[in-house]
Amino acid sequence: MSVTDDFHVYDTTLRDGTQQEGLSLAVADKLAIARHLDALGVGFIEGGWPGAVPKDTEFFRRARTELDLKHAQLAAFGATRRAGAKAADDPLVAALRESGAPVVTLVAKSHVRHVELALRTTLAENLAMIQDTVSHLRAEGQRVFLDAEHFFDGYRADAAYALECLRTAAEAGADVVVLCDTNGGMLPPQLADIVHEVREATAARIGIHTHDDASCAVANALAAVDAGATHVQGTANGYGERSGNANLFSVVANLQLKLGREVIPPAGLAEMTRIAHAVSEVTNLAPNPQQPYVGVSAFAHKAGLHASAVRVDPDLYQHIDPQLVGNDMRMLVSEMAGRASVELKGKELGFDLSADPGTLSRVTNRVKELEACGYSFEAADASFELLLRAELGEPARFFDVLSWRTVADQLAGGAVVNQATVKLRVKGEPVLAAGEGNGPVNALDIALRAALAQAYPALAGLELVDYKVRILTGDHGTASRTRVLITTSDGAAEWATVGVGENVVAASWQALVDAVTYGLLVKGEPVL
Amino acid sequence: MSVTDDFHVYDTTLRDGTQQEGLSLAVADKLAIARHLDALGVGFIEGGWPGAVPKDTEFFRRARTELDLKHAQLAAFGATRRAGAKAADDPLVAALRESGAPVVTLVAKSHVRHVELALRTTLAENLAMIQDTVSHLRAEGQRVFLDAEHFFDGYRADAAYALECLRTAAEAGADVVVLCDTNGGMLPPQLADIVHEVREATAARIGIHTHDDASCAVANALAAVDAGATHVQGTANGYGERSGNANLFSVVANLQLKLGREVIPPAGLAEMTRIAHAVSEVTNLAPNPQQPYVGVSAFAHKAGLHASAVRVDPDLYQHIDPQLVGNDMRMLVSEMAGRASVELKGKELGFDLSADPGTLSRVTNRVKELEACGYSFEAADASFELLLRAELGEPARFFDVLSWRTVADQLAGGAVVNQATVKLRVKGEPVLAAGEGNGPVNALDIALRAALAQAYPALAGLELVDYKVRILTGDHGTASRTRVLITTSDGAAEWATVGVGENVVAASWQALVDAVTYGLLVKGEPVL
Repeated sequence: MSVTDDFHVYDTTLRDGTQQEGLSLAVADKLAIARHLDALGVGFIEGGWPGAVPKDTEFFRRARTELDLKHAQLAAFGATRRAGAKAADDPLVAALRESGAPVVTLVAKSHVRHVELALRTTLAENLAMIQDTVSHLRAEGQRVFLDAEHFFDGYRADAAYALECLRTAAEAGADVVVLCDTNGGMLPPQLADIVHEVREATAARIGIHTHDDASCAVANALAAVDAGATHVQGTANGYGERSGNANLFSVVANLQLKLGREVIPPAGLAEMTRIAHAVSEVTNLAPNPQQPYVGVSAFAHKAGLHASAVRVDPDLYQHIDPQLVGNDMRMLVSEMAGRASVELKGKELGFDLSADPGTLSRVTNRVKELEACGYSFEAADASFELLLRAELGEPARFFDVLSWRTVADQLAGGAVVNQATVKLRVKGEPVLAAGEGNGPVNALDIALRAALAQAYPALAGLELVDYKVRILTGDHGTASRTRVLITTSDGAAEWATVGVGENVVAASWQALVDAVTYGLLVKGEPVL
Repeated sequence: MSVTDDFHVYDTTLRDGTQQEGLSLAVADKLAIARHLDALGVGFIEGGWPGAVPKDTEFFRRARTELDLKHAQLAAFGATRRAGAKAADDPLVAALRESGAPVVTLVAKSHVRHVELALRTTLAENLAMIQDTVSHLRAEGQRVFLDAEHFFDGYRADAAYALECLRTAAEAGADVVVLCDTNGGMLPPQLADIVHEVREATAARIGIHTHDDASCAVANALAAVDAGATHVQGTANGYGERSGNANLFSVVANLQLKLGREVIPPAGLAEMTRIAHAVSEVTNLAPNPQQPYVGVSAFAHKAGLHASAVRVDPDLYQHIDPQLVGNDMRMLVSEMAGRASVELKGKELGFDLSADPGTLSRVTNRVKELEACGYSFEAADASFELLLRAELGEPARFFDVLSWRTVADQLAGGAVVNQATVKLRVKGEPVLAAGEGNGPVNALDIALRAALAQAYPALAGLELVDYKVRILTGDHGTASRTRVLITTSDGAAEWATVGVGENVVAASWQALVDAVTYGLLVKGEPVL
């Protein structure tokens, strides 16, 4: 681990981020996002609330065998014990212990009115709940951070009590007390003043958790760090309830590139743009092109007057070198992939393009062309590899498509039947096959593999494990394009492919053909 | 005008905002946005660059007769005169004079390297250009503001020269010198330090213009105001190049509601949410649901646990009363939904369930059952309302579905055709209709509305504006369920519906039927 414990970059995408309207993650999605965050190099990944949310219990269970984190430690989120009970007897506290997470982040009330109204207990009992839960988990061998919910409003309502909550937690063994601007209403100077006062009033290590309701989440996080906080919480792409959490990508880039603090490995920072887009593919939320640092438009210049000056000295027009965050300057309306990311991705797939600038340019241009049509290769490595092989003059082709058809019928009784027929040329012979499935794409997938089964028996083990559709243009009056992402598994590995078109079934078909083609490549079948 | 000249709220949506990738406004669009901004109560509206952009010349021409502004004054944007000429002879300066705008905002270089590289003139000539252009326009009777481009970088490169540019402008008669963080790279403390130094070094009135490249545009604007700036520039919804300009709505709401400065009339502030959405209708850019203060999600609460406390005292959970900006609190019926959030949601939709605990329990249980099957109502208010009406014994039913069928064919030539047939019973009569679309769901949607067109002509205006598909379980060996979310618009309102099933076409069909049913309810059609 190149980054020490002196400063914590703490991600809460998988817990607080999922409070965003319309964001819902399956366990497999959470595992995928955790891997991306670890590749970025964050120190802590809050996985969810085991015990309270069954999916989160499962996340921690599967994480033990399915996650191999290089940088990050997992944190389990939970509340202090119930009023009037013992932490040791509380089943929700037990779930935190049993999560296997090295860190537990306990949320506690620190606002007198919230204790009375939401918790419906006494101020003294709330302190006892903090003391008991923290010391119990510490005794059981877990590291404990304390999220002081609604801290800033609580401090304004009753500073002495809010501070007493922090002191109680720290004395019971909490490593960090995190000041939460839960409703997102603070502005940086007022927030900084309170952080300063807290530092004078306690010896506890201070963390900060902010929301963007006043458009100041990132500035608030930085103001707290400036005032002495050494633990900062945020989410990928700023996901979160209402207006979102502090965008952890912006916080990290500002700290590292503008304030000279190395809070994640520089190699991770250089992957930030790719990772931001990969996470948004998993959440199935369209990436914000304007997102600072990582957005497609973040370094896009409308050419015109400044074009020549930009070419002479781009630094005059850019606040940072975009390559530091894996992004690229764009002068015209072209798409996001740059040579650097194509080269990096090629390398990742085992193709060294650095020695062959001509091919690198050709592949980059082809990717840009396709991305302009709506393709996205961020989460479709298999389709990217097929494209790369084609540009390198080694196309992977195992069959030709002659025609296909799907039919969905709702019968009078209400049952729905989907059938497909597929006609291919395989090893010189025309093959016709049919399939029935729970949708047109499923039926096509089954028919496609049925048509190939005799020539390629290895395909029998393939399974379509995820299927995502996104409509790309909502403009009225224009034909909207659809992007389909398919994840396929052979039991051992998974790979993702992409298809784009005005017709969703046709886009799906492209992605299916890529999926099966890549499967045959993996199995080592000879190409045509 | 209730707001005095002491503090300037200066909008540059129509000039700097249109630098956003994909944003292009016709003259009529600009006039419409100017009216909205005036209704909000901004002091100045920068209309564009007359002389340089023909559309902007026309905007100022038409504004004279077509705009009747109550609060705002128009500002014409332009550059200082060409090097080596006279302001009085410069055709672009003439266009500023002839615009009829009472205010001219002149952009000038204040960074030594930009003078040399982009302007390609001497430092002395740049000062002469500022002096000559400002004093010429002042003599011709216009008020002049000076935008000092790349000021902060320029100040770091050569503070004495950057200050000399400001002093030259102020001495020539500029009312305000606007410090521009043109590349958006500043952080609030460093920006505030420079504003303080500028205030000590000149007597000029200071303005601030910021961009969001470091996620700090709003915080930077506020930091400058805190340091003494009395003129703040920004754009509606934060539109602008790269990551956008300072979001003027957030800046104004923060100043007025959190810092006690009345910078626009309170009646305008109470219209801010409506105005933000009206502007996005004109720009044809989808509004950001998470946008602070005015977004649809800005006051949406998901956490089921807190719903009961929210009911007791919403102020504990909100940073401001949303009505101050014309927004509303919303409860999301989520997977953690309990009775309290169902009750609140019902109330929001106009159904008082508090007096009827039996129905409340029945609805809550039904929601939990459906959510356990994969439904999600947090982003599907219309389906939730239909469910609620059914549980209340007032189901919204306008037709019966007898059967449907879709066919997708890839022909030998590669073209794909999707067709659907739908058979309904409408007002006692069986109706069969067909549709062709760019996918099975599009084809079904068209066929469904074709089948209803004669009985319900009001449906002709409906449009499916968004379609999202999610696969819910990725577990091998189990049948995966698919969740479909559909957003429908009738031009005035939008509503979202949900469908779930093992078959994606069948799930889409459910959501389509809900979408059309809700549309008929909205139109006031009598139920069966």
